[in-house]
Amino acid sequence: MPSRVTGARVVGSRKVKNQAVLLVAGHWLMLSVAINIGFLLKIIHDGNLGMDWYAFNGNGVAVSSLASYTAEPKPGNDVQIQEKYINLDHGDPTMYQSYWKQMGERTTIVISGWQSVSYFSDTKNLCWFLEPGFAKAVTRLHNLVGNAETANRHIVVGTGSTQLFQAVLYALCPSDASDPMSIVSAAPFYSSYPLIAECLKSGLYKWKGYTNDFDKDEPYIELVTYPNNPDGSIRGAVFNGSGGILIHDVAYYWPQYTPISSRADHDIMLFTLSKSTGHAGTRLGWALVKDEAIAKKMVKFIEISSIGVSKDSQNRAAKTLDVISDTYEDAETSNESKRFFDFGYEEMAKRWRQLREAVNKGKRFSLPNLPVGKCNFSNRTFGTQPAFAWVKCEHASVSDCESFLKQHKILTRGGEHFGSSKKYVRISLIGYEEDYNEFIRRLSLINSEESP
Amino acid sequence: MPSRVTGARVVGSRKVKNQAVLLVAGHWLMLSVAINIGFLLKIIHDGNLGMDWYAFNGNGVAVSSLASYTAEPKPGNDVQIQEKYINLDHGDPTMYQSYWKQMGERTTIVISGWQSVSYFSDTKNLCWFLEPGFAKAVTRLHNLVGNAETANRHIVVGTGSTQLFQAVLYALCPSDASDPMSIVSAAPFYSSYPLIAECLKSGLYKWKGYTNDFDKDEPYIELVTYPNNPDGSIRGAVFNGSGGILIHDVAYYWPQYTPISSRADHDIMLFTLSKSTGHAGTRLGWALVKDEAIAKKMVKFIEISSIGVSKDSQNRAAKTLDVISDTYEDAETSNESKRFFDFGYEEMAKRWRQLREAVNKGKRFSLPNLPVGKCNFSNRTFGTQPAFAWVKCEHASVSDCESFLKQHKILTRGGEHFGSSKKYVRISLIGYEEDYNEFIRRLSLINSEESP
Repeated sequence: MPSRVTGARVVGSRKVKNQAVLLVAGHWLMLSVAINIGFLLKIIHDGNLGMDWYAFNGNGVAVSSLASYTAEPKPGNDVQIQEKYINLDHGDPTMYQSYWKQMGERTTIVISGWQSVSYFSDTKNLCWFLEPGFAKAVTRLHNLVGNAETANRHIVVGTGSTQLFQAVLYALCPSDASDPMSIVSAAPFYSSYPLIAECLKSGLYKWKGYTNDFDKDEPYIELVTYPNNPDGSIRGAVFNGSGGILIHDVAYYWPQYTPISSRADHDIMLFTLSKSTGHAGTRLGWALVKDEAIAKKMVKFIEISSIGVSKDSQNRAAKTLDVISDTYEDAETSNESKRFFDFGYEEMAKRWRQLREAVNKGKRFSLPNLPVGKCNFSNRTFGTQPAFAWVKCEHASVSDCESFLKQHKILTRGGEHFGSSKKYVRISLIGYEEDYNEFIRRLSLINSEESP
Repeated sequence: MPSRVTGARVVGSRKVKNQAVLLVAGHWLMLSVAINIGFLLKIIHDGNLGMDWYAFNGNGVAVSSLASYTAEPKPGNDVQIQEKYINLDHGDPTMYQSYWKQMGERTTIVISGWQSVSYFSDTKNLCWFLEPGFAKAVTRLHNLVGNAETANRHIVVGTGSTQLFQAVLYALCPSDASDPMSIVSAAPFYSSYPLIAECLKSGLYKWKGYTNDFDKDEPYIELVTYPNNPDGSIRGAVFNGSGGILIHDVAYYWPQYTPISSRADHDIMLFTLSKSTGHAGTRLGWALVKDEAIAKKMVKFIEISSIGVSKDSQNRAAKTLDVISDTYEDAETSNESKRFFDFGYEEMAKRWRQLREAVNKGKRFSLPNLPVGKCNFSNRTFGTQPAFAWVKCEHASVSDCESFLKQHKILTRGGEHFGSSKKYVRISLIGYEEDYNEFIRRLSLINSEESP
């Protein structure tokens, strides 16, 4: 079979019959050019979600340099680490690995070959592919932490919160509406939202981003990320139309990142294992959903798109969440080793201290002011310490902060992916310690230099 | 936020300002009615993929009867099993569980809490979320069985072959074509294809099914399921247009179901763990893809839609596939216990014998003729013994075979879901033995009766 697809090719031979069609055709051509430019920009950036390492090989970075990046850093000498690319583009939560190593066999799971073979987990549950043990562990941990209301909620499990986000869109948009429903989110917004919403050119919904170009009295969907990814701000819905249906992405509403001021009590809340416990490779998320009809449609979407969710992942997640709860509820074990959220809090606090110190060494960079609050879970009063830093290149000569940092082999995600300016980048703070320390060293060095 | 959405409810308290708005409101009302009818229709059928047990509760089946169905049958007396619903609608491959029990600890896996935490599996691989051990096990098993060419292929892993099917559609359809690409498949086709293709009303592709209503010289996608689901037939592409791009769903091309006559060597081949080893709950599939650009776009889709695939599932699958290969390559162990495909072959042969006997007891039902061939793997010559039987209700008075069997508490999937007639149903042969035997008992009984 010849390779017929380039992903960014204008399909020709359109019959132009009258002026109206011509206008439409002109419009399409403009759209097409815009799409092509967009596609090129995407290729120029190293991957939509910053995952595109393979494509990145052909992107001006020598493969040999690239090969020096591995998911888990290998022991190397100072020269080796100083030459390697530090990838802080994506939020790979490998920071937590050392905690889980320290916990030894407590979160080990054993799965026999004959277990969890069926599609079904619980045929009496609305979410028939939800493992009862996982549901119980989720409820238990939320009740312990006090970060989300679980009473009178349906739990829907997904292949990461990414799949759940798509399930919610499917559930909220009528399948036979004449126009796709608008999806909006105040900038800066999570860079994956537009990619997911636009991926299949769905007729059900349409990404509008942060424009006001839609009818606020008609139903529309507003995404609220709380605290916000990428900038850590705490904000509610901002569009304030009467038709607004809210999806709350509360992936980071955990006590290592932000003070838990109250039990989140929204209609649709999305959580993910990646950012709560650090198990990104397990690809597991869960939604807490008030309305039964919405939950049912979400389940239907996950049934159609993946016939449920890995039971192995769910069983592993159940074990992990339960061990976290155990260390808080069992006084003896909590004395033996650090409790999970204490580890997370201290690690994030340390990394933010390091970052602020590096930023304060010069005038090249700035960080946003983040809100301080009292955490009902830990009883600490502290400033939000997000998983990502939203860094601005302040020097007038630097218009593209991502490219500037890339010259120093620091890979970040540019502000334009979040509906913002290229003067900003998002930097992950939750990677391996070795990589993070090297990033801090380089940032301090850059910031100490006289001119760009 | 008040609960504004029920999935099928008109959004209230809209200010009606002028006639245009009134028209829109009227339109919404109509839409809403349409949605309600659509929703009811969905509930009337017991689930699109036959998974909708929860919805099924409200479908004229007493919850108490339904509750008697569990994923794993509990020991019960004869009266209990004779009263329960036997669900042969979906292809839950629980038949294989007894084999894995018999294998004891050989396929047990142990996962430590700190393992597989990263999003990344192998940053040097095009498919960066593919676990190297899983890739190796897939290649090894295909080479052993001889059912698929693996040389010069990219392996792309997915959350079941269901996700991979969507990934291929995304990869094959240009994102800026003026018209969606046609997807066709000869009837009877796998009932999930239209559901998946139509789910999000994508502008990239459009389900056409088995019509000839499309331009065969323009690129189109033809789905070839080999052997076919639901009817077990062996067929290639049938539309024969010059624009045809083929996707081969070879989920059932394993030696327990069909003679392996040659190494499948197509451009895009989809496999799934569910139907090869029986681990449906693990939600894992893999694609063998010739073209690098297509494989890359598939990886991009899986990145956008679920940021990779569960590593726990991949590691478990790797172990399972390796143990199957081991039992063939290690002479000692193969003497101790039955080898996997021998078990599968014998079990399928037995179940098909039982079914043919029951069908031959009367004139109410018929089965298709299935091709006989020599299997290069087992050296057996045998007739295809598919995971599903495509049964026809022959009696003139029965126009709806699914409803007829439902009266006897046998749940099947009606022919109309496969683009065929209601005179047909698809029946799963790969469920628990206890359920299957009870189905055979009832079928024999029905078939022995004089009139419907």
